[in-house]
Amino acid sequence: MNRIEHIGIAVRDIEEANKVYAGLLGYEHYKTEEVPSEGVLTSFFRCGESKIELLKATNAESPIARFIEKKGEGIHHVAFYVDDIYKEVKRLKNEGFQILNEEPKKGADNKLVVFLHPRSAHGVLIELCQDITKT
Amino acid sequence: MNRIEHIGIAVRDIEEANKVYAGLLGYEHYKTEEVPSEGVLTSFFRCGESKIELLKATNAESPIARFIEKKGEGIHHVAFYVDDIYKEVKRLKNEGFQILNEEPKKGADNKLVVFLHPRSAHGVLIELCQDITKT
Repeated sequence: MNRIEHIGIAVRDIEEANKVYAGLLGYEHYKTEEVPSEGVLTSFFRCGESKIELLKATNAESPIARFIEKKGEGIHHVAFYVDDIYKEVKRLKNEGFQILNEEPKKGADNKLVVFLHPRSAHGVLIELCQDITKT
Repeated sequence: MNRIEHIGIAVRDIEEANKVYAGLLGYEHYKTEEVPSEGVLTSFFRCGESKIELLKATNAESPIARFIEKKGEGIHHVAFYVDDIYKEVKRLKNEGFQILNEEPKKGADNKLVVFLHPRSAHGVLIELCQDITKT
Protein backbone atom coordinates (compact mmCIF):
# COMPACT_ATOMS: atom_id res chain seq x y z
CA MET A 1 0.00 0.00 0.00
CA ASN A 2 2.37 2.66 -1.24
CA ARG A 3 0.33 5.51 -2.65
CA ILE A 4 -2.99 7.33 -2.35
CA GLU A 5 -4.84 6.31 -5.50
CA HIS A 6 -7.64 8.81 -4.98
CA ILE A 7 -9.80 10.75 -2.56
CA GLY A 8 -13.55 10.33 -3.06
CA ILE A 9 -15.70 13.41 -2.41
CA ALA A 10 -19.50 13.13 -2.12
CA VAL A 11 -21.27 16.03 -3.84
CA ARG A 12 -24.89 16.94 -4.56
CA ASP A 13 -24.39 18.66 -7.93
CA ILE A 14 -21.52 17.15 -9.91
CA GLU A 15 -21.61 19.72 -12.71
CA GLU A 16 -21.27 22.53 -10.20
CA ALA A 17 -18.58 20.60 -8.28
CA ASN A 18 -16.63 19.98 -11.51
CA LYS A 19 -16.44 23.73 -11.99
CA VAL A 20 -15.38 24.36 -8.39
CA TYR A 21 -12.64 21.71 -8.43
CA ALA A 22 -11.43 22.87 -11.86
CA GLY A 23 -11.13 26.34 -10.32
CA LEU A 24 -9.28 24.92 -7.31
CA LEU A 25 -6.85 22.69 -9.18
CA GLY A 26 -6.42 24.94 -12.19
CA TYR A 27 -7.44 22.31 -14.77
CA GLU A 28 -10.51 20.34 -15.89
CA HIS A 29 -11.65 16.79 -14.97
CA TYR A 30 -10.53 14.27 -17.57
CA LYS A 31 -13.42 11.81 -17.46
CA THR A 32 -16.81 10.95 -16.04
CA GLU A 33 -18.09 7.44 -15.45
CA GLU A 34 -21.32 5.99 -14.12
CA VAL A 35 -21.20 2.94 -11.85
CA PRO A 36 -24.81 1.68 -11.84
CA SER A 37 -24.07 -1.11 -9.31
CA GLU A 38 -23.06 1.54 -6.75
CA GLY A 39 -25.65 4.11 -7.80
CA VAL A 40 -23.03 6.77 -8.53
CA LEU A 41 -21.89 9.11 -11.24
CA THR A 42 -18.18 9.87 -10.89
CA SER A 43 -15.84 12.51 -12.23
CA PHE A 44 -12.04 12.34 -12.09
CA PHE A 45 -9.27 14.92 -11.84
CA ARG A 46 -5.60 13.95 -11.93
CA CYS A 47 -3.42 15.23 -9.12
CA GLY A 48 0.17 13.99 -9.28
CA GLU A 49 0.18 10.23 -8.73
CA SER A 50 -3.31 10.49 -7.17
CA LYS A 51 -6.78 11.47 -8.38
CA ILE A 52 -9.71 13.42 -7.01
CA GLU A 53 -12.97 11.52 -7.57
CA LEU A 54 -16.24 13.43 -7.27
CA LEU A 55 -19.23 11.20 -6.52
CA LYS A 56 -22.89 12.00 -7.07
CA ALA A 57 -25.71 9.63 -6.14
CA THR A 58 -27.89 8.47 -9.04
CA ASN A 59 -30.61 7.03 -6.81
CA ALA A 60 -31.88 7.43 -3.23
CA GLU A 61 -30.42 4.08 -2.09
CA SER A 62 -26.90 4.96 -3.23
CA PRO A 63 -24.30 4.92 -0.43
CA ILE A 64 -23.49 8.49 -1.51
CA ALA A 65 -27.11 9.61 -1.03
CA ARG A 66 -27.11 8.09 2.45
CA PHE A 67 -23.73 9.66 3.27
CA ILE A 68 -24.85 13.15 2.21
CA GLU A 69 -28.15 12.80 4.07
CA LYS A 70 -26.27 11.90 7.26
CA LYS A 71 -23.14 14.04 7.04
CA GLY A 72 -23.54 16.50 4.18
CA GLU A 73 -21.13 16.90 1.29
CA GLY A 74 -17.46 16.14 1.92
CA ILE A 75 -14.79 13.48 1.81
CA HIS A 76 -16.39 10.06 1.55
CA HIS A 77 -13.35 7.78 1.35
CA VAL A 78 -9.62 7.50 0.75
CA ALA A 79 -8.36 4.85 -1.66
CA PHE A 80 -4.93 3.25 -1.51
CA TYR A 81 -3.45 1.45 -4.48
CA VAL A 82 -2.40 -2.14 -3.80
CA ASP A 83 -0.55 -4.55 -6.06
CA ASP A 84 -2.37 -7.66 -4.86
CA ILE A 85 -5.80 -6.94 -3.42
CA TYR A 86 -6.48 -10.55 -2.36
CA LYS A 87 -3.23 -10.69 -0.41
CA GLU A 88 -3.89 -7.29 1.21
CA VAL A 89 -7.41 -8.27 2.27
CA LYS A 90 -5.99 -11.38 3.93
CA ARG A 91 -3.24 -9.39 5.63
CA LEU A 92 -5.60 -6.66 6.89
CA LYS A 93 -8.12 -9.21 8.13
CA ASN A 94 -5.31 -10.77 10.18
CA GLU A 95 -4.44 -7.28 11.47
CA GLY A 96 -8.01 -7.04 12.80
CA PHE A 97 -9.52 -4.67 10.23
CA GLN A 98 -13.22 -5.09 9.48
CA ILE A 99 -13.53 -5.81 5.75
CA LEU A 100 -16.85 -4.65 4.26
CA ASN A 101 -16.61 -6.85 1.15
CA GLU A 102 -14.08 -9.66 1.29
CA GLU A 103 -14.67 -10.50 -2.35
CA PRO A 104 -13.32 -7.56 -4.39
CA LYS A 105 -15.97 -5.88 -6.55
CA LYS A 106 -15.75 -3.84 -9.74
CA GLY A 107 -15.60 -0.12 -9.03
CA ALA A 108 -15.11 2.93 -11.22
CA ASP A 109 -11.97 3.48 -13.30
CA ASN A 110 -11.42 -0.19 -14.18
CA LYS A 111 -10.62 -1.16 -10.60
CA LEU A 112 -11.25 -4.05 -8.24
CA VAL A 113 -12.18 -2.50 -4.91
CA VAL A 114 -12.56 -3.54 -1.27
CA PHE A 115 -13.74 -1.30 1.54
CA LEU A 116 -12.72 -1.35 5.21
CA HIS A 117 -15.22 -0.19 7.84
CA PRO A 118 -14.55 3.36 9.13
CA ARG A 119 -14.64 2.06 12.69
CA SER A 120 -11.50 0.07 11.84
CA ALA A 121 -9.58 3.20 10.88
CA HIS A 122 -10.56 6.04 13.26
CA GLY A 123 -13.57 7.17 11.29
CA VAL A 124 -12.06 6.91 7.79
CA LEU A 125 -13.70 4.77 5.11
CA ILE A 126 -10.71 3.10 3.44
CA GLU A 127 -10.80 1.68 -0.07
CA LEU A 128 -8.19 -0.69 -1.46
CA CYS A 129 -8.01 -0.73 -5.24
CA GLN A 130 -6.14 -2.51 -7.97
CA ASP A 131 -6.35 -2.27 -11.76
CA ILE A 132 -8.49 -5.06 -13.16
CA THR A 133 -6.03 -5.64 -15.99
CA LYS A 134 -3.42 -6.58 -13.43
CA THR A 135 -5.34 -9.51 -11.95
CA MET B 1 -1.42 22.60 -7.28
CA ASN B 2 -0.09 19.35 -8.63
CA ARG B 3 -0.04 16.82 -5.82
CA ILE B 4 -1.79 15.83 -2.61
CA GLU B 5 0.77 16.74 0.07
CA HIS B 6 -1.15 15.02 2.86
CA ILE B 7 -4.49 13.97 4.28
CA GLY B 8 -5.13 15.11 7.85
CA ILE B 9 -7.08 12.70 10.08
CA ALA B 10 -8.50 13.82 13.44
CA VAL B 11 -8.09 11.16 16.14
CA ARG B 12 -8.79 10.96 19.86
CA ASP B 13 -5.89 8.68 20.85
CA ILE B 14 -2.82 9.21 18.65
CA GLU B 15 -0.81 6.32 20.14
CA GLU B 16 -3.62 3.92 19.32
CA ALA B 17 -4.13 5.49 15.88
CA ASN B 18 -0.39 5.20 15.14
CA LYS B 19 -0.69 1.45 15.71
CA VAL B 20 -3.82 1.15 13.55
CA TYR B 21 -2.33 3.12 10.62
CA ALA B 22 0.97 1.23 10.90
CA GLY B 23 -1.11 -1.95 10.60
CA LEU B 24 -2.99 -0.53 7.62
CA LEU B 25 -0.01 0.82 5.70
CA GLY B 26 2.42 -1.89 6.71
CA TYR B 27 5.04 0.47 8.17
CA GLU B 28 5.52 2.87 11.09
CA HIS B 29 5.07 6.66 11.29
CA TYR B 30 8.38 8.47 10.79
CA LYS B 31 7.88 11.47 13.05
CA THR B 32 5.68 13.25 15.56
CA GLU B 33 5.49 17.00 15.99
CA GLU B 34 3.55 19.29 18.29
CA VAL B 35 2.15 22.57 16.90
CA PRO B 36 1.26 24.57 20.05
CA SER B 37 -0.23 27.47 18.06
CA GLU B 38 -2.85 25.08 16.62
CA GLY B 39 -3.26 22.98 19.77
CA VAL B 40 -2.33 19.75 18.01
CA LEU B 41 0.04 16.84 18.26
CA THR B 42 0.74 15.37 14.83
CA SER B 43 2.16 12.13 13.55
CA PHE B 44 3.26 11.48 9.95
CA PHE B 45 3.34 8.43 7.69
CA ARG B 46 4.80 8.57 4.20
CA CYS B 47 2.63 7.28 1.37
CA GLY B 48 4.18 7.68 -2.06
CA GLU B 49 4.49 11.39 -2.83
CA SER B 50 1.89 12.13 -0.12
CA LYS B 51 1.68 11.76 3.65
CA ILE B 52 -0.92 10.71 6.17
CA GLU B 53 -1.05 13.16 9.09
CA LEU B 54 -2.77 12.06 12.29
CA LEU B 55 -3.94 14.97 14.46
CA LYS B 56 -4.76 14.91 18.16
CA ALA B 57 -6.00 17.95 20.07
CA THR B 58 -3.77 19.09 22.92
CA ASN B 59 -6.38 21.40 24.44
CA ALA B 60 -10.16 21.82 24.40
CA GLU B 61 -10.04 24.91 22.15
CA SER B 62 -8.05 23.15 19.44
CA PRO B 63 -9.81 23.04 16.03
CA ILE B 64 -9.32 19.25 16.21
CA ALA B 65 -11.15 19.02 19.55
CA ARG B 66 -14.06 21.02 18.10
CA PHE B 67 -14.08 18.91 14.92
CA ILE B 68 -14.20 15.62 16.85
CA GLU B 69 -16.90 16.95 19.19
CA LYS B 70 -19.05 17.88 16.20
CA LYS B 71 -18.31 15.12 13.70
CA GLY B 72 -16.33 12.40 15.46
CA GLU B 73 -12.98 11.05 14.31
CA GLY B 74 -12.22 11.08 10.59
CA ILE B 75 -10.70 13.06 7.76
CA HIS B 76 -10.23 16.67 8.81
CA HIS B 77 -8.58 18.18 5.72
CA VAL B 78 -6.78 17.57 2.45
CA ALA B 79 -3.59 19.48 1.73
CA PHE B 80 -2.29 20.30 -1.72
CA TYR B 81 1.31 21.27 -2.33
CA VAL B 82 1.78 24.62 -4.07
CA ASP B 83 4.98 26.21 -5.34
CA ASP B 84 3.96 29.79 -4.55
CA ILE B 85 1.38 30.04 -1.78
CA TYR B 86 0.98 33.83 -2.07
CA LYS B 87 0.24 33.55 -5.78
CA GLU B 88 -2.19 30.66 -5.24
CA VAL B 89 -4.08 32.53 -2.51
CA LYS B 90 -4.50 35.48 -4.87
CA ARG B 91 -5.62 33.22 -7.72
CA LEU B 92 -8.12 31.30 -5.57
CA LYS B 93 -9.52 34.48 -4.07
CA ASN B 94 -10.19 35.70 -7.62
CA GLU B 95 -11.83 32.33 -8.35
CA GLY B 96 -14.25 33.07 -5.50
CA PHE B 97 -12.88 30.72 -2.82
CA GLN B 98 -13.29 31.81 0.79
CA ILE B 99 -9.79 32.01 2.28
CA LEU B 100 -9.70 31.38 6.06
CA ASN B 101 -6.28 32.97 6.60
CA GLU B 102 -5.01 35.17 3.79
CA GLU B 103 -1.66 35.55 5.49
CA PRO B 104 0.03 32.12 5.40
CA LYS B 105 0.82 30.74 8.87
CA LYS B 106 3.39 28.26 10.10
CA GLY B 107 2.00 24.73 10.26
CA ALA B 108 3.52 21.34 11.04
CA ASP B 109 6.31 19.84 8.96
CA ASN B 110 8.09 23.13 8.22
CA LYS B 111 5.24 24.43 6.05
CA LEU B 112 3.49 27.70 5.38
CA VAL B 113 -0.22 26.91 5.30
CA VAL B 114 -3.46 28.55 4.20
CA PHE B 115 -6.93 27.05 4.65
CA LEU B 116 -9.98 27.44 2.39
CA HIS B 117 -13.45 27.25 3.94
CA PRO B 118 -15.21 23.87 3.42
CA ARG B 119 -18.25 25.70 2.04
CA SER B 120 -16.02 26.80 -0.85
CA ALA B 121 -15.20 23.21 -1.81
CA HIS B 122 -18.30 21.06 -1.34
CA GLY B 123 -17.69 20.31 2.33
CA VAL B 124 -13.93 19.71 2.13
CA LEU B 125 -11.52 21.73 4.26
CA ILE B 126 -8.67 22.45 1.84
CA GLU B 127 -5.15 23.31 2.95
CA LEU B 128 -2.52 24.82 0.67
CA CYS B 129 1.03 24.25 1.83
CA GLN B 130 4.53 25.15 0.80
CA ASP B 131 7.91 24.40 2.37
CA ILE B 132 9.13 27.36 4.42
CA THR B 133 12.65 26.97 3.08
CA LYS B 134 11.34 27.65 -0.42
CA THR B 135 9.95 31.10 0.34
